[in-house]
Amino acid sequence: MEQGKLFVLSGPSGAGKGTICKEIVRRENIGLSVSMTTRAPRGEEEHGKSYYFVSEEEFQQTIDENGFLEYAKIYGHSYGTPKKPVLEQLAQGKDIILEIEMQGAFQVRNVYPKGILIFILPPSLAELRKRLIARGTEDEEEILIRQQATLNEIALIHDYDYYVINGDLEDAVNIVRSIIMAEHSKVDQHVDRLIRKYEEEL
Amino acid sequence: MEQGKLFVLSGPSGAGKGTICKEIVRRENIGLSVSMTTRAPRGEEEHGKSYYFVSEEEFQQTIDENGFLEYAKIYGHSYGTPKKPVLEQLAQGKDIILEIEMQGAFQVRNVYPKGILIFILPPSLAELRKRLIARGTEDEEEILIRQQATLNEIALIHDYDYYVINGDLEDAVNIVRSIIMAEHSKVDQHVDRLIRKYEEEL
Repeated sequence: MEQGKLFVLSGPSGAGKGTICKEIVRRENIGLSVSMTTRAPRGEEEHGKSYYFVSEEEFQQTIDENGFLEYAKIYGHSYGTPKKPVLEQLAQGKDIILEIEMQGAFQVRNVYPKGILIFILPPSLAELRKRLIARGTEDEEEILIRQQATLNEIALIHDYDYYVINGDLEDAVNIVRSIIMAEHSKVDQHVDRLIRKYEEEL
Repeated sequence: MEQGKLFVLSGPSGAGKGTICKEIVRRENIGLSVSMTTRAPRGEEEHGKSYYFVSEEEFQQTIDENGFLEYAKIYGHSYGTPKKPVLEQLAQGKDIILEIEMQGAFQVRNVYPKGILIFILPPSLAELRKRLIARGTEDEEEILIRQQATLNEIALIHDYDYYVINGDLEDAVNIVRSIIMAEHSKVDQHVDRLIRKYEEEL
């Protein structure tokens, strides 16, 4: 069977990668990786669906076992992408999409070089600023710092395979879907199976 | 300005590359390259639209000037893709699509290595056989030879960038459109211009 493909959506925060990811999962036959975290569930979050909620010890054990595609500590809580469920689904021919911060994307590339890295960009820094203000989680100074950080992050775009400017959500989603389709149409090792199929006909 | 991209549709005859190419030109903002030929116009064919109709001397002169992306002699007539109009349009940022035989595709790759080669496959040899019978231009023996030739051609798929199985025309057209879109979303040299655009904002 053809191996599934791993698509990693990443990029500066505020670019809208989460929204794009949700739309892709809704429309395509693609699995969404579930993260592991040490933070407590909020609201209606379900174990195994929103996150795998685990103790610090379990998280550390997974690190020790080399069991993460990527992990990070954010505001005192640990978050990570368990390797096993992702690799199992890929082996079954299922595509997987991951939406993560840029540090995580580079970790994934090291652990799973076949992963396809897609950089999601805001249409402009001005638009990013607008979105951050609308979100209301940062003050003016933080927004300026964030814009500068975004510039530094954009400079890392060369390490990605594709980029998508998220101006219009519908357009951005269509480009990501096209990338998924095109990646499946690339000529690689698995075309040998295809060639055999034709050979067996004669 | 961003350079246009050259997409080359090729593959065994009877796979339907001509039909796909026409549909792409109808739906996308993409130029179709006009071939040069030494054969006489047929029916309503117009000079500069269907073909550039030229004399043997003019054709030979273009060869001597290294003026073809590819050329070949088929049943006593010469056909070729003039390099200049293609390169001019690419320089103006316009994508170009070319539909040619496999020999031609490899010539294009040599002359213009940035060209993107797409291999169009029939869904099966049985289906190819059906299409050839429907076309009515070959007898039984010729069809068998053609099927064997198709197998030999399919073995060259590794030299292509993408492959598209033309079972359902609409699906095949959508895959080619996705490939065009994905190719424009690849991270390459031209993202430097993109990065500068963001930098200039701060």
